Amino acid sequence: MTKQEELDQLVQNVAQEGDKLPAVERRNFLKQGLTLLGAAGLAAGGKQAAAAMPPELPEWSKRLGPGVLTNPYGSPSKYEAHVQRRTVDWLTADRIASISFTPLADLKGIITPSGVVFERYHAGLPEINPQQHRLMIHGMVERPIILSMDDLMRFPSVSMIRFLECPANGGMEWRGAQMDRLQFTHGMLACCEWTGVLLSTLLAEVGVKKGASWILAEGSDGSHMSRSIPMEKALDDALIVYAQNGEALRPEQGYPVRLINPGWEGNTSIKWLRRLEIGDKPWHHREETSKYTDLMADGRSREFTFVQECNSVITSPCPEKPLGKPGKLWIEGLAWSGRGKIKQVDVSVDGGVSWRPARFTSTVLPRALTRFGVEWEWNGGPAMIQSRAIDETGYVQPTYGQLRDARGTNSIYHKNAIHTWKVNTDGSVANVQIS
Amino acid sequence: MTKQEELDQLVQNVAQEGDKLPAVERRNFLKQGLTLLGAAGLAAGGKQAAAAMPPELPEWSKRLGPGVLTNPYGSPSKYEAHVQRRTVDWLTADRIASISFTPLADLKGIITPSGVVFERYHAGLPEINPQQHRLMIHGMVERPIILSMDDLMRFPSVSMIRFLECPANGGMEWRGAQMDRLQFTHGMLACCEWTGVLLSTLLAEVGVKKGASWILAEGSDGSHMSRSIPMEKALDDALIVYAQNGEALRPEQGYPVRLINPGWEGNTSIKWLRRLEIGDKPWHHREETSKYTDLMADGRSREFTFVQECNSVITSPCPEKPLGKPGKLWIEGLAWSGRGKIKQVDVSVDGGVSWRPARFTSTVLPRALTRFGVEWEWNGGPAMIQSRAIDETGYVQPTYGQLRDARGTNSIYHKNAIHTWKVNTDGSVANVQIS
Repeated sequence: MTKQEELDQLVQNVAQEGDKLPAVERRNFLKQGLTLLGAAGLAAGGKQAAAAMPPELPEWSKRLGPGVLTNPYGSPSKYEAHVQRRTVDWLTADRIASISFTPLADLKGIITPSGVVFERYHAGLPEINPQQHRLMIHGMVERPIILSMDDLMRFPSVSMIRFLECPANGGMEWRGAQMDRLQFTHGMLACCEWTGVLLSTLLAEVGVKKGASWILAEGSDGSHMSRSIPMEKALDDALIVYAQNGEALRPEQGYPVRLINPGWEGNTSIKWLRRLEIGDKPWHHREETSKYTDLMADGRSREFTFVQECNSVITSPCPEKPLGKPGKLWIEGLAWSGRGKIKQVDVSVDGGVSWRPARFTSTVLPRALTRFGVEWEWNGGPAMIQSRAIDETGYVQPTYGQLRDARGTNSIYHKNAIHTWKVNTDGSVANVQIS
Repeated sequence: MTKQEELDQLVQNVAQEGDKLPAVERRNFLKQGLTLLGAAGLAAGGKQAAAAMPPELPEWSKRLGPGVLTNPYGSPSKYEAHVQRRTVDWLTADRIASISFTPLADLKGIITPSGVVFERYHAGLPEINPQQHRLMIHGMVERPIILSMDDLMRFPSVSMIRFLECPANGGMEWRGAQMDRLQFTHGMLACCEWTGVLLSTLLAEVGVKKGASWILAEGSDGSHMSRSIPMEKALDDALIVYAQNGEALRPEQGYPVRLINPGWEGNTSIKWLRRLEIGDKPWHHREETSKYTDLMADGRSREFTFVQECNSVITSPCPEKPLGKPGKLWIEGLAWSGRGKIKQVDVSVDGGVSWRPARFTSTVLPRALTRFGVEWEWNGGPAMIQSRAIDETGYVQPTYGQLRDARGTNSIYHKNAIHTWKVNTDGSVANVQIS
């Protein structure tokens, strides 16, 4: 074969079988009223152009634009202004101790842009001068220390892409479908690249005394948010973080330094970290007794339920992303597990009667968001779209029925049931529940 | 063993051998004048506190801060305002056709925040309305089409974390050390998560005719930037990208849609993409003849030198990050290769006389930035710090001597020699060259 014959063969293979992905059949653009060049070209300005003509040259192609450094620190296009955090004001008494939600419907891939990572404050957002901030490590240690940020930068650093999820994510849905946007049903969720020093590195530095088994992490904000962390997690992958998605932590996420406990409920990942106390039992502070415990049907509470279990959700379609015309389209979503990697995701368009496997379309990392998708030919009829994730431990995301059998409906936290979007014939999408 | 005895053993193991990382010896904080609690506590406000006392409670710990949604789309702390793109005005005649540089010295991990990804314009920054933008695919195809952004979203999507580098990165250094900041020696470099549709998916849709072997990609900006791309790359991993680090592409990086050719010179990854023409030979447009070719010592030029070969640089210390006090510290840097994964990075502190292997401290992905680091005990004397990367093909980053032997000094593009930072006894760091 000549080189060109080889290339022709390669092109044929891609067209017939796909290269990285399964074969894509034609979308039937004509049938869908979309633009096949040579039939009817749509002008770039939205005006109808002569048949068989390419788009008119838009105005922005005929002139010079502003130069470099117009924005030394850039921001999104003005056409993306709708992509922002939002809050549900009735959820909390005020915005000082409240939450805002990540706009998942408009996000792609697995990295959450730092500007729209959900916020959770217990006493508002502190403005911390990093030159003045200190981190103290004391208690059952040989050599208690106080570290400046410069000191911390002298230790070996590690970067990990990991999800962060408030355990109250979806907590409003325990007793029935409630919220009308993906942003509110699942938006207490983000995934960033976190960089810092392993807590185990710092514990080696201070010398943990025999008998120590718990660590209290305390924040520097007005609420002095405090949580008890088992020593096992501290010695595993707990990270003292100073950078997020490549740059310094954002103020909303704990600038200049925070704890990240990968895969665990976000509340334990104390922000604006000022103190780590090593001890031999948990402290039973307010935020691990009256809050962040799981009230069961019998009136008793589960405490220290740290792990965010395997979960998933379809991000397109969703209420904010209704379907357009019938025809071939792409269903996609996110899956995650606090126990490790996602092993499999299945998608149903008939409310769980039948399932087919989705493919992963992002890097698959442990305790990180994982992006998945399936092709679907929408016939214009109603549909019930669901995803069901399975993690590497074999844990299968439960139905609402299974979850309520185990946990009742008194709880706020750790809701990870299979979610259903109802597609209507006009393409609109609603939040419903199937047991 | 009881559970506590097991835990004590685990703590001992971490202290003695390290868990994820090799053992960290004590930093000798007292010797370095740093703060050992119980000796002399530094107040959080920077004032000297009584011996054996923890830091004073800072003001921000005593009050409430602003609530959620104070910034619906957040931005960095005011204390990070120095982390921004910068330009070298003498490099280009004006800022309309110019470049700004990524502030690598202040970045961590492998993700480059979208706000500081380097800019490269040939006719300034177009402001494009995504509702009006169209992508045309025509030439040697069975079914030429014009796609709206909504059309594009119906295709299967893929997300990849990949570096993007201008082939002129470091081009000012060919004849000797020139620039005085890491931002300027290596800052035409970024790494983002890119999401979009594989070009091979779109080519399957339009049906490539036999004999086709090249694709012209044309931008929608005033310069109509155009490059010829071989069909092999189009069928491999070339991606039609609409999202960057989770959100819509930034205007500076091609909003609403661009081409990304992973691992290839950034100039081929056409921004503001409006047209893909399939043909049977390259077009030899201006930006692949008079520019973006490599002038050799004999006066002839290499053309279509697409791949960004294996490269690396130390990011701390560097001119913007001088050393503090002598003692243990962390040297770190970035390595990347357009041919695949980084296999190994070695670090020298004596100008290449002796080397020791660095460890990877980030996810290692093909054609992505890879973060590495080594511990170093600085004795306060002068040092020559270098890194040398090897990729999975076995290619070893060359010395300046090796690179100049092969390529001369007339070139602007594809400079990937081993870089040297000279550490002075006062901790300052300078750009020097070793052949």
